[in-house]
Amino acid sequence: MIKLYYAPHTCSLASHIALEEAGAAYSTLRINFASNEQRSPEYLAINPKGRVPAMVTERGILTETPAMLAFIAQSFPQARMAPLDDPFAFAQVQAFNSYLCATLHVAHAHRMRGHRWADDPAAIAAMQRKVPQSVAACYELIENGMLKGPWVMGDAYTICDPYLFTVAQWLEGDGIEPAQFPRVADHRRRMSGRPAVRKVVAEELAPAIVEA
Amino acid sequence: MIKLYYAPHTCSLASHIALEEAGAAYSTLRINFASNEQRSPEYLAINPKGRVPAMVTERGILTETPAMLAFIAQSFPQARMAPLDDPFAFAQVQAFNSYLCATLHVAHAHRMRGHRWADDPAAIAAMQRKVPQSVAACYELIENGMLKGPWVMGDAYTICDPYLFTVAQWLEGDGIEPAQFPRVADHRRRMSGRPAVRKVVAEELAPAIVEA
Repeated sequence: MIKLYYAPHTCSLASHIALEEAGAAYSTLRINFASNEQRSPEYLAINPKGRVPAMVTERGILTETPAMLAFIAQSFPQARMAPLDDPFAFAQVQAFNSYLCATLHVAHAHRMRGHRWADDPAAIAAMQRKVPQSVAACYELIENGMLKGPWVMGDAYTICDPYLFTVAQWLEGDGIEPAQFPRVADHRRRMSGRPAVRKVVAEELAPAIVEA
Repeated sequence: MIKLYYAPHTCSLASHIALEEAGAAYSTLRINFASNEQRSPEYLAINPKGRVPAMVTERGILTETPAMLAFIAQSFPQARMAPLDDPFAFAQVQAFNSYLCATLHVAHAHRMRGHRWADDPAAIAAMQRKVPQSVAACYELIENGMLKGPWVMGDAYTICDPYLFTVAQWLEGDGIEPAQFPRVADHRRRMSGRPAVRKVVAEELAPAIVEA
C-alpha cells in the first residue's frame, strides 16, 4: 500500500487528492513543519531533501510532485487522469505541471522560504515584496491560455487539476485577489465541489491528534 | 519535423542532446539572448513564457525541459532513453529531472536572473552571494545518492544524463570547484566523450552566423 508523507498547506495536497481520485489504496503520515520535523533524522532517511511530499511505494520512495502525479496516473490507468497513450498530450500535461513546480511554486516560495536564496534579512524582505507581482505574472499566463477550461486540459479532468487547485490555495496569502483571475477562481470553486477534494481537504485541515 | 528553439549556455542544451541521441529528425533555431529576442513579439507567439527551450512538433508547441525530455523518450522508444514500461522507474527518472528543473536550476538562476524575484539591487546582490552555497547543496545530494553511476540511473543512459550534463556546465560560473563533486565531474567528462554531445555542443558554441 502507498504511504504519503504530507504537510497541510503545502504542495503535497496535489498528490493526496490525486491518490484519492485514482481510488488508490493508501495511507497518510502528517509531517509537523512547526516542529521542523521535515529536517529530523527520521524524515531525512525517507527524503534527504527534507521536504514534502514523499511517497513510499512497494518499489521504493518517490519525491517531486510532477513525477509523483505522473506515477499515480500511470499506476491507476482506469482512473484516466492523464492521456497515457498520447505522448504529445501527455507532454502538455507534464509541461503544465512543470510550470507550476518550477515557476509558480518557486515565485510563491520567495514569500516564506527566501532564506533558501539569500541570508540578508533586507534581501528576504525585498523578495517578499515582489511575490504578489511575480506570482500574478504566472497566473496571467494560466488565465489567458494555459487553463483551457472547464478543466486545465479542457474537457478531461487530469493530474493538472489537483495541482492547480493546490497552488491556487495560496492566492490570497500571496497578496492576490482571486477575482483578478476569474477562470482560475472558477476552477478552484469547481474543484472544491468534488467529493475526493472535500474529503482530502477535511483530513488535511483537521487538527493534528495530540499525542499523550 | 521537430524544430527546437534554443540559446547557447541555457537548459535547452538538454533537449538538443536528447533529440540528437534519439536519432530524431529535427532542426534548430538559435534565439539571441543578447538582443533579448526571447521577449520579441515573434518569439512570444511561439512561447508566451519568453524562455527557451520551445519545441515545435507536428501536433503543436511544447515547452518545459522535463516534459520535453519525456516526450522525446516516448516518441523515439527505440532509443531507449527512459524505462517507458515501468511507471516506478520512469517516475525515478522524472523525479531526478524535476529536481534539476525546480531546485538546482532555480538556485543557479539567482546568479543572473535575480530580477525575477526582487527589484532592489542590494537584494539581487545578496542572492548572487548565496549561489555557490545553494547550488552546492544540490550537488551534495546528487553526488551522494541521486547519481547512481556510471549514468544517473545506473547502467542505463537516460534523459537524466543530458540534463545533468547541461546544468553541470554552470558549475564553475556558479563558483563551484568541480573537484568537490568527483562523481558529477566524472559524469560530465564521460558525457563530453559521446559523439552526440560533441556534435551538439560544437553547433551551439559555434559563432552565430552574422546576417548581411
